[in-house]
Order: sequence, then C-alpha cells, then structure tokens
Amino acid sequence: MVMADKLLIKDCRLLGENGVCNPLRDIVVTNGAIATINDCGQAPPPGADILEGKGRLLLPGLINTHCHSPMILFRGLADDLPLMTWLNEYIFPAEARLVNAEMAYLCGRLAGVEMLLTGITTVADAYFHAEDAARGLIEAGMRVVSAQGIIDFPAPGVPDPDKNIAAAAEFLSAFKPSDLATPAIFCHSPYTCGPETLKKAKALARSSGCLFFIHLAETEAELTIIKKEHDSSPGRYLNDLRILDRDTVLVHCVHLDDEEIRIIAENGAAISICPRSNMKLASGIAPVDKFLDAGIRVGLGTDSAASNNALDILLEMDMAAKSMKTARDNAAILPARDAFAMATTGGADCLGLGEEIGRIEAGMRADMIIIDTDSPSLTPQYHGHSLLTYSACGRDVTDVIVNGRVVIKDRVPTLVNIDTVMAAVHKLSRTAFPYQPPGPRSRG
Amino acid sequence: MVMADKLLIKDCRLLGENGVCNPLRDIVVTNGAIATINDCGQAPPPGADILEGKGRLLLPGLINTHCHSPMILFRGLADDLPLMTWLNEYIFPAEARLVNAEMAYLCGRLAGVEMLLTGITTVADAYFHAEDAARGLIEAGMRVVSAQGIIDFPAPGVPDPDKNIAAAAEFLSAFKPSDLATPAIFCHSPYTCGPETLKKAKALARSSGCLFFIHLAETEAELTIIKKEHDSSPGRYLNDLRILDRDTVLVHCVHLDDEEIRIIAENGAAISICPRSNMKLASGIAPVDKFLDAGIRVGLGTDSAASNNALDILLEMDMAAKSMKTARDNAAILPARDAFAMATTGGADCLGLGEEIGRIEAGMRADMIIIDTDSPSLTPQYHGHSLLTYSACGRDVTDVIVNGRVVIKDRVPTLVNIDTVMAAVHKLSRTAFPYQPPGPRSRG
Repeated sequence: MVMADKLLIKDCRLLGENGVCNPLRDIVVTNGAIATINDCGQAPPPGADILEGKGRLLLPGLINTHCHSPMILFRGLADDLPLMTWLNEYIFPAEARLVNAEMAYLCGRLAGVEMLLTGITTVADAYFHAEDAARGLIEAGMRVVSAQGIIDFPAPGVPDPDKNIAAAAEFLSAFKPSDLATPAIFCHSPYTCGPETLKKAKALARSSGCLFFIHLAETEAELTIIKKEHDSSPGRYLNDLRILDRDTVLVHCVHLDDEEIRIIAENGAAISICPRSNMKLASGIAPVDKFLDAGIRVGLGTDSAASNNALDILLEMDMAAKSMKTARDNAAILPARDAFAMATTGGADCLGLGEEIGRIEAGMRADMIIIDTDSPSLTPQYHGHSLLTYSACGRDVTDVIVNGRVVIKDRVPTLVNIDTVMAAVHKLSRTAFPYQPPGPRSRG
Repeated sequence: MVMADKLLIKDCRLLGENGVCNPLRDIVVTNGAIATINDCGQAPPPGADILEGKGRLLLPGLINTHCHSPMILFRGLADDLPLMTWLNEYIFPAEARLVNAEMAYLCGRLAGVEMLLTGITTVADAYFHAEDAARGLIEAGMRVVSAQGIIDFPAPGVPDPDKNIAAAAEFLSAFKPSDLATPAIFCHSPYTCGPETLKKAKALARSSGCLFFIHLAETEAELTIIKKEHDSSPGRYLNDLRILDRDTVLVHCVHLDDEEIRIIAENGAAISICPRSNMKLASGIAPVDKFLDAGIRVGLGTDSAASNNALDILLEMDMAAKSMKTARDNAAILPARDAFAMATTGGADCLGLGEEIGRIEAGMRADMIIIDTDSPSLTPQYHGHSLLTYSACGRDVTDVIVNGRVVIKDRVPTLVNIDTVMAAVHKLSRTAFPYQPPGPRSRG
C-alpha cells in the first residue's frame, strides 16, 4: 500500500487533558507513525508532504467499536418500528435478498468514506462477508478490525449454519493481516447462537489470538429468553461458558445488573456501547457510569447505519453524555471528558490497540483528524472536550490521516471516487422492497 | 428592508406527505411570498434573481420555538454541572457581569447566523434586552418573535424588579413590528415570578395582543417549590391564575400529569419542547406523545446554546424521536413524520403563524431552506422524513431564504460579516471568568 514516507502537519491546535487547545507548531509523520511533535523547526523535512492545519484542531482519529458496514444499504429503509418487527419483517428479509460479497464490498466503501468524513479512523466491523466489507473499508482508507459473523441460522454467505464455525475459521485463515487490518470473530448474540456455537467460536478466536465480539443484553426480550432457556442472565451465562476474557468485546450491555458488571470487570472483558442505536430502537440506556467505575474498558459504537441512522462518533459522544445524565437525573454525570475518552483512548483500549492508536504521541500510529472550529456553531470556545461533545459533529471534520496517509483532504476522499460509489448504492437501494412509513401521529 | 422583488428557485426536490421527494421544476417568489409552484415554465420571470437548486431538497424553513440568543456567549462556559449549581454559580453571575444591550445585539447576530446556517428561519427568542437581541437576529436575516423577559429579581437592563412589568410594557410600545418581527412577553417561570407578576404580565400581553411565553414544569425541583408555595402543580397553578389560553406558549413541560395536559389542551395553550436541553441538564423527557394525542400545538426549541449546546432543530427532531422511544420503551412512537411536523407546521402553529410559515404553498411567506442530500451520510434515501430526522443535521443546509430574501447562499451568510461577529464574540468570551471542568471519570 502506498503511503507518504513523510508528512508534515503544520499550524494546528492540540487538545490538552485540561480541555485547553494549545498551538502546535508541527508534527512529523514517518512510515505511518508519529515521529516528532514540535521538533522539526521551521524547515520541513526533505521530501515531506505538507498538510496545512490552518490553526484548526488536531485530534486523535475517533474509534468506532461497533458497526455493521454493509447495512448502510438499509439506512432509513424501515424506521419507527418495534425492534422485532423491524428485524423480522424488514431487516432479515432485506439481508436475505440483498447481501452478497459484491454488496458488502460496495457498502464497505460507502461506510468507510462516511466514517472517515466524520472523523472515524478505526472501525470494528462485524458482519457476514466480512472480508469483502473490510476490503471496501480499507480501500476507503480506514483501519479495520474485521469480524466475521456467526449465527445459528442461514446467513449471507453461510447458508448452512452447521458450517458457521468452519466458515469463520476459513475467514481467519484466508485473512491477510496488515498494518490496517486484523481479523476477528463476531457471534451475533447469546439467543441466536447456541452454547456449543459460542464455546467453539470463542475457542477458535483464542486459538487465533483474535478478538471475539458479541451483542449482549441489548433488550429486555433477550433477558427473558436467556432466563427461559438457560435459567440465567446474559452476563452470567457468558461467564459460565468461559467466554469472558480480555479479548472479548461485549456490545450494547444495556441490561446488566451490578453483579454482572462486577463479573465482566473481574474477567477483563471490554464493552462497546451504542447509545443512539439503543435509543432509536427503544432498547434502553446502558449504565456506562457503572462500567467506568468498575474499571471496564469502554468504547463507543455507532451500530449500523440502519439502526441510528448515522455513522458519527461525535454524535455518539453527545448522546452517551446526555442519555446517562437523563437516566441518572444528574447533569454532572459522564462529563464531556469521559465521552471524549471513550471515543479515543477508551475505544483503542477496548480493541486492544491502546499502544498504537487513540492518542497523539510520538511513536503512536499516525491516525489523526482535523476539525474546523472556525464556525458560528463552535463559537465561542471555552473547553475543548465540551466543544467537541456538545457542539461539534462529524461534518466539522476537514482532513483525516490514517496510518500516515491523508485519506480525506478538505472534506474530499482521496482514495475512492465517492460519486461512483453513491450512485451504485442508490441504484441497489431501488431494488429494495417498498415500505410505507407510519403516518403522522401514529403511535405504533 | 431590501429584498428581491422576484426570486426564481429552480430544479429542487420537494418532500411530500408520504415521505417521497418529488422533483420540483420551479418556485417563483414575489414580495416575500410564494407566488407560484411549477407554474413559470422554462423562462424565468423578467427581473427575477435565480437560485439554482441543483436537484437538492427544498424544505420549509425550520422553526425554533424557544431560544435565548444572547446566551450563545455562555456556550460551553460551564457544562456537566447540577442544574442549580450551573445556574446559580455560573450562568446567573455571568449574566450579571456580561449581559448588556451591546452584548445582546452582538450575540443576536451570531445566534442568527448559526440558526440560519442550520436551516432555522424563525425563532421565538426570549431574554433581557430583547429588542437588541432581535435587532441582531433580524440583521442576520431571521424572522423573529422577540419576547422581553420578566423575572422578580434584578435582571440585565431591569435592575429593579418592581419595574419589570413597566419595562416590558415599554418594550412592547417601543417595538416596531415588521414583516419579520413581532414582540412578545416572556415570564421566566412560576417559581421566579410571583402570582401578581404573572397575572400582570399576562394582562399586558392580552392587551397588546401578543404571545406570552413561560418556562413550565422543567424540573422536579420546580414541582416541589410550587407544591410548597402554592399547594399546587405548575400546570394547575397557571390555570388558576387564568394564564392559559391560545396565546400562551409553555416551554419545556417535562413534568406534567395527565390532568394538567388535559387542562392545557382544553385551554388551547401551545407547548415548546426542548429535548436536548432537557437531557443535558438532566431535567427529564417531556411526554410529547401525550401532548400530540391531546391535540396540543407542539413545536421544538433549542433552548439556549449554553444549555444543549447547539442551535440545530434537525438535531432536536432526532432527539425528540429517540428520547420519546426510550421513555416509552417503544421504537414505533413519535415517528420521523411527527418530528418533522413539530419542526415546521407544529412550530408555526405554536407561534400563531400557521397561515404564514411552515409549509411550501402558494400564498405562504417565502421561508425555505435547501439541503444538500448528495453526501455519503445521506445515502441511500428511502423516506424523506426519516432521512431528515435521523441522518441529516444543520450542517447539510446550503441555502436559506427568509421572506423571499436569500440570507444564506452556498453556506455563506449574505447579510452579516460573520468573521467580524465571531471575532468580537471570541474577544468578549475571554472576559468571562475561568472555570475548570470536572476531570475524567468524575461523577459529580
């Protein structure tokens, strides 16, 4: 993969721990990593590309710890429906009809560009045809943890569920890891995968040394199923199956009790919360304050574009903070700094990448974004974390660097012809079945 | 005021009731009103300015039914604090020190531009020095209902609370109503205005034929105060004072019981809900489904930029829908169409302007916005209301027309030098006192 040998970023501001945005003279990037900060003086290193920061705010690339990129095709296909109606009558049939390798690759590119444009540089993506979606995401310029889906039902690319573990093993062995991509395993949930599947999938992930993702405790309905089928609760059940360890990422975790949170913390598993998806689907508000108090690594996820319906981690920061304040009747809880941490260092730690991404420091991979704060919506400016969490959104991002390469420049993707990709997705979307949304004031 | 005698808007798409975006060949605007739709043929009317729609989406201008424009100076000054600490230790002292006529005018211009850039064409603004804030808002190009604040404490511009009604009367008599501006009265709340003040203020509004705004039932703390001081609840208390009628707009209304909602509906008062402010300040979630079921006119409000911290009605639409779904454990409740209606026709009805703004129809005032839907974040497109509510945000607005005048063109304000305004606000913000936000993982 071609990347700039040397990149000089000039004239930015850098967000400090205390929320103050300090002037930053220069950052030199070599071989995809941050080489020096404020150390090159006035003269650019010979042969370096130059990115003018224009006094804008330089941040670590944002990290999306949960997405299903190909589902971008279903964004807005059927909204405002009860979760089970939405899934069973619209999403599952649409997936059965429309998801294939080519679609996953196409939608991976679209989702990749959308995420880069909103400042997301790393995504943990979980779906079927994961290798094709990852190809699209990487082509757009993203860093990807690509998790192949496992479910005990016929699935896109895996028509025979008896072969779901074998298909995942094949995915892992065929995957070519790179600077930008690592493979992983994604079991859909404890109610759509039987205990043997869960154990085999985790064993496969362990033997491959890769991450294991699973939707957990997303809805009240899931609690009822796990109680009925296993006389347990989602967190305890996974613990009994010996699934929880530092390489497991639990997604959603809306409905966990205090003891389950303690168990998860003791086992060192990480959590990805998806506040906007959980609210749109009326699943609830995850007790993220308790996760953080317990010392659990927590990252933010957008979930799919069909769920929320935007791939924008800055909006997730806002919603994480606002929803937690509402849930606790306490405006002081989950301050902006915590939201920002979840979107950067927290997300990196969650994915086991805390030594590589999430911070702007010499030696870290060069994943960085530039935000244009020179706008009425971001005026005045007192505290950087607050500004980013409550006033900024992904549309304020102007430039994006992943692994040292400028993949968005002045809001334009540099690697993908986005018009071609959008046109292809529009065309494919016209083959989706018609759906009539509920009328005004209908109450479901 | 100068405005285009004739404006031709070409080549847009128009959102239909069914959510479909249909091609629109042309709209002709004359004298600030919509003259014809799809009726001018290929040739532009002689002398008309032409606005190329580029196939983008044309919408009615969005309506912000509650704002305190000058408080934009305090955006992000002190976040993540308990409501009473925030108010008493930061906002009230900052207001006492920094609010004056010049500041209100300056911040009115900044807030006006921010709102126009996010597609808000009409604002109901409520504050002290209301005439100065309104001057700034109008200069930016907005349509304004400008409400002078009344509170039984010393306030900016009204140091002697005994003269608060007189000051409001003076404001009303000095205000020069125009095509773009009407005056109104804003009593801060039933716990900061005594019963005599409330009655006198409403009598003044009645005698002037203007709207009367009041914060109502925003917090649990307010319920406790009204119970203790008046052995009542906020809605009943206002009803007993004969404050509720079709010219009263009740703001927030988070904590109303079913009987209060019935009383409000029977009296024909309108409600402005501010979902993002209420969540950030941990006030709760207003039962907007019940308001709509009761037939109450409901509009959306941003509240001040210090409360939420963005003046963006598209984000309020998203939050109104998501928060209500969460509050009711029902993903089908408050569908996107309802959210869109509250931002347009609902807001217009709420302000008594339903025959003038909120819809794109011949004869209506020409308040319209254009949204660029040609972006990855808005791809694909199935249903317009869903796209706008869940995927769009104010940053997608490209052009804004108020009363027939193009006030934002290609994302640039046409009437105000925004760089000058932003520089002045930045300078003023540096005189605000320093405040250190809580550190990571502080829990208040």
